[in-house]
Amino acid sequence: MLLDRINEPQDLKALSVAELEQLAGEIRHFLIEKLSVTGGHLAPNLGVVELTLALHYLYDSPADKLIFDVGHQSYVHKILTGRKDKFNTLRQYKGLCGFVKRAESEHDVWEAGHSSTSLSAAMGMAMARDLKGDKNKVIAVIGDGALTGGMALEALNHIGHEKPNLIVILNDNEMSIAPNVGALHHYLSRIRTDRHYQKAKDELQNLLNKIPAIGGKLAKTAERFKDSLKYLLVSGILFEQLGLTYFGPVDGHDIEQLIDILKQAGSIQGPVLIHVVTVKGKGYSPAEADSFKWHGITPYKIESGQVLKAVGPPMYTEVFGQTLIELAERDDRIVAITPAMPGGSGLLEFAKRFPGRMIDVGIAEQHAATMSAALAMEGMKPVFAVYSTFLQRAYDQVVHDICRQNLNVIFAIDRAGFVGPDGETHQGVYDIAFLRHIPNMVLMMPKDENELRNMMKTAVEYNDGPIAIRYPRINAVGVPVEPEMRTIPIGTWETVREGDSAVIVAIGPMIAVAEEAADLLKREGLNVRIVNARFIKPLDGKMLMRLADEGLPIVVMEESSELGGLGSAIMEYYALQGRDGVTIRLMGVPDRFIEHGSIKEQRIEAGLTAERCAATVAGMLRQNRKWATGQR
Amino acid sequence: MLLDRINEPQDLKALSVAELEQLAGEIRHFLIEKLSVTGGHLAPNLGVVELTLALHYLYDSPADKLIFDVGHQSYVHKILTGRKDKFNTLRQYKGLCGFVKRAESEHDVWEAGHSSTSLSAAMGMAMARDLKGDKNKVIAVIGDGALTGGMALEALNHIGHEKPNLIVILNDNEMSIAPNVGALHHYLSRIRTDRHYQKAKDELQNLLNKIPAIGGKLAKTAERFKDSLKYLLVSGILFEQLGLTYFGPVDGHDIEQLIDILKQAGSIQGPVLIHVVTVKGKGYSPAEADSFKWHGITPYKIESGQVLKAVGPPMYTEVFGQTLIELAERDDRIVAITPAMPGGSGLLEFAKRFPGRMIDVGIAEQHAATMSAALAMEGMKPVFAVYSTFLQRAYDQVVHDICRQNLNVIFAIDRAGFVGPDGETHQGVYDIAFLRHIPNMVLMMPKDENELRNMMKTAVEYNDGPIAIRYPRINAVGVPVEPEMRTIPIGTWETVREGDSAVIVAIGPMIAVAEEAADLLKREGLNVRIVNARFIKPLDGKMLMRLADEGLPIVVMEESSELGGLGSAIMEYYALQGRDGVTIRLMGVPDRFIEHGSIKEQRIEAGLTAERCAATVAGMLRQNRKWATGQR
Repeated sequence: MLLDRINEPQDLKALSVAELEQLAGEIRHFLIEKLSVTGGHLAPNLGVVELTLALHYLYDSPADKLIFDVGHQSYVHKILTGRKDKFNTLRQYKGLCGFVKRAESEHDVWEAGHSSTSLSAAMGMAMARDLKGDKNKVIAVIGDGALTGGMALEALNHIGHEKPNLIVILNDNEMSIAPNVGALHHYLSRIRTDRHYQKAKDELQNLLNKIPAIGGKLAKTAERFKDSLKYLLVSGILFEQLGLTYFGPVDGHDIEQLIDILKQAGSIQGPVLIHVVTVKGKGYSPAEADSFKWHGITPYKIESGQVLKAVGPPMYTEVFGQTLIELAERDDRIVAITPAMPGGSGLLEFAKRFPGRMIDVGIAEQHAATMSAALAMEGMKPVFAVYSTFLQRAYDQVVHDICRQNLNVIFAIDRAGFVGPDGETHQGVYDIAFLRHIPNMVLMMPKDENELRNMMKTAVEYNDGPIAIRYPRINAVGVPVEPEMRTIPIGTWETVREGDSAVIVAIGPMIAVAEEAADLLKREGLNVRIVNARFIKPLDGKMLMRLADEGLPIVVMEESSELGGLGSAIMEYYALQGRDGVTIRLMGVPDRFIEHGSIKEQRIEAGLTAERCAATVAGMLRQNRKWATGQR
Repeated sequence: MLLDRINEPQDLKALSVAELEQLAGEIRHFLIEKLSVTGGHLAPNLGVVELTLALHYLYDSPADKLIFDVGHQSYVHKILTGRKDKFNTLRQYKGLCGFVKRAESEHDVWEAGHSSTSLSAAMGMAMARDLKGDKNKVIAVIGDGALTGGMALEALNHIGHEKPNLIVILNDNEMSIAPNVGALHHYLSRIRTDRHYQKAKDELQNLLNKIPAIGGKLAKTAERFKDSLKYLLVSGILFEQLGLTYFGPVDGHDIEQLIDILKQAGSIQGPVLIHVVTVKGKGYSPAEADSFKWHGITPYKIESGQVLKAVGPPMYTEVFGQTLIELAERDDRIVAITPAMPGGSGLLEFAKRFPGRMIDVGIAEQHAATMSAALAMEGMKPVFAVYSTFLQRAYDQVVHDICRQNLNVIFAIDRAGFVGPDGETHQGVYDIAFLRHIPNMVLMMPKDENELRNMMKTAVEYNDGPIAIRYPRINAVGVPVEPEMRTIPIGTWETVREGDSAVIVAIGPMIAVAEEAADLLKREGLNVRIVNARFIKPLDGKMLMRLADEGLPIVVMEESSELGGLGSAIMEYYALQGRDGVTIRLMGVPDRFIEHGSIKEQRIEAGLTAERCAATVAGMLRQNRKWATGQR
């Protein structure tokens, strides 16, 4: 095996093209085998095997900066930079990260997880290099999907203006995670496939060559004419117009051609865009056949491509998707909006049932949010389905366009809380903190699938402004689904367990953890009440006042940043009401980034366990003896 | 006067082109006169007089939707829709808003203040119209500067994909607020000015017309050739490639031509982009000569164009700009980054002194933030100078790219707190709430100009991650400036007034308000301590514990959202430390949007006054008798 001898990029330099091709095959085999056990981003990585080999063959990492947009296509890069032995631990707690990770290797120079950051990173690195007088190369690898993200376009506009030396590799596989949308996508398709146009170009080139040098007055006209015709010879005229030199399209699985064109591009002054066409899932037929499904995959059987499914109740995502169909059948104002995540957000069935009412805008969270605002302005009921972590991209649009104008936009915030193996770039632990302070916002979290359904009905019927439902990336509880949804009065909590020693105020999956804690305390003779704070905003002021009157100590549990979270909201409420003396403890996600692992491991790392909750309650009761001795 | 007879758009319909031209002159006169007293966005509005007249002449507002990007160029629209009598109150408390405002008129269909939202709004309105089966027109007016904002490009990409019927008016005046940057800008310039290119096009058209119909095998080639040549005849090929039909460039001050081209565009299926070239400040020579200065202007003398200046200490913005020069002289790692606000952020002098070290990226906050991250990654000291309200656009980049990677980016957050006449779209009252919960962030606010300078030195010397300084849009205090800057230990507060009855913990300009309150209380015999909480994160835990030990009641004052603010931070600290029984009251910006007016009026509306602070302290002391009777 050639792969056995490759431990760093330097080991590639002496290989022949034939050997690189052999290595590509071995790497594919390695990826297919390893990921069949761990799961991971298989299809994106199979698509960039040759490209990554060519880059490491030609450039000197880490002096030359290789920037991978999103970073989930960096597995081949990791294999080539001394980490192939760690693939058994991929995406596991304390194991190899599924994204670029600086702590792992000096070859990892830029971390991401969210898309579309690579061009800004490349621009900054190129400017720093030029300011310092260094000479290294800067190369960004960006997908055609990621290129539609607004910040990538902002960067492109700036790159074309400043014209630093840098290379943009446009990895065009016609997919984001879902098939791409957008005019840019169609434009790239035309370049790739329009043989008519290609042929016309060839003929023009011929013609140009044949135009003889002409003297006299006509000469200038002829020259101008020739100049103008050259516009036609440039496939990537859009990029050329924006100030980048365009190369391509080039077959991303032909190493020789890749090396050739990368060398050519290296001699150009100013920014270069190389349009590389790749096949997502290349070399593994199940993944080639359905690269959407195989983008990120759980463990599978290699021979059959059969994916090993976990059993259990449906995911919250599925409950959301199914319920939205039910609601949309009765209310044709409902439209669903997704920023390139129709599958991840559970909207595929909805899209089939209501063509034209599921709008996939591509990787464009800002536009998605503000377009939702406009749909609401015109009387529709837009449901903006978005992952918590990606909603961060639309914070300003939520403040300025939706909440300030107080429009009836429904937010379906998926993957709220820990997300498991995707890790720190994808944790949905800030949405409470960044949404709660915005005027007019209503924010809910369900305790089980029925409550999610009821909240969705509540949201559709709510006509006083924006309303958001956040739900986690886990299986729902598994309670029997009530056929009829019920409206929940805005700002009302519920007591889910009676008790008079202390109160645990919890949301979502933390209610189950609170129940466990209460069971532990029960053994010590303590009856702990559990309150489902299903409205994070507005709070249930009546219940909070009652709790204060009862004088019970309160523990607030949330799988969300403990700064700016539900616990703070409760303390603010008491302070604003001038209600002193309520004893409160916060149990949320501490003030640091929590890395990849299972959700269970992440909860343990954050201290969000039944044991710690029980200990906290017990500690409060010891501290406030009057409670323990029942002096109330 | 024709203008006297115009009270609604309907009144325009019967006018001749000559009368519309006369009216344009009258409107210009009206604007120049009114704004000389109130101030306001003069230059942008002088640039769109004819355009706005043409739009209201042709379309049926409000059935047809006129969407103004940013909205500060909507004065002419306001004049034509029944609001000309209110211009005496422009941008004043309870007066006419300086932006589009739905509460003012049914003709105001989309509010903004931040740029680049109009295309998403237009897309949403067009989709809602088509889903409902309505037939109204949707027209967005967007500047060439706003078009470089990522969300506008996201929307353009989506519009070109879905191809709804809508009209984009590209109001090309070559300016954002500052002169435009970006490859798109150069592209537009080429269209406007490249006469060589224009002439080549004319000649090609001639040639095309002369190509005879040819029979036989050659016919197909000739046709293909002809087809290909047509690419050259389209000026806006970039927009055409993105799926929009391009018209232009057209003179935006020629009403007849405007009406003509708008009519043509109206007959096209699918999205249309009309490239209108306007002169910012048109018709008022001081504004034409310096449209940058006259973008937003304070009162002025009409004859001389002399701007009436307020006297007083320098603005914090100026102190920042001057100090940054001092620091950059000693440290060549310092680079300044601005998203199209070099003037507003006090960086013009810096740019002159250090060419190449002031990077204006255009309206592109996301790119600016992430590029800053990359600059820091490569050892530079990027200073991202940005208004609080516009930093909202880069929230995800701050979380995901800067804080998660823990990079040494310095944030200079200007216009933190109330901003006065720009009003609710521009208030800088959320940055504490949206930054405070992000791990690794350090957040400061100075009490005066010396402290701002010291904080800047502190920030430059800090090497443990991101650090932010927020400062208000007001004159600094006027203290003598110390020549030598001093480093402030991270996370330390200071007592600025001694007292043992209660503590007011305040930041920035609220310290002066607290002083007033303390003076009021002094008259009642109460000595109130004032603490300058100059670090909002990390807090001064030692001092907080000491305050708790002393048992003094605490009032927290901040000109910032009282949800998620400094007050919450302090309560969280005590709760996380398990420190109970501290009495705290919050005085911040209440949970609603505060409209335009003077900063003083906005403070009164928010209840951020010395009187209310004093009453709050007195109330707490009454409530906790033990304090009042000195039982401690």
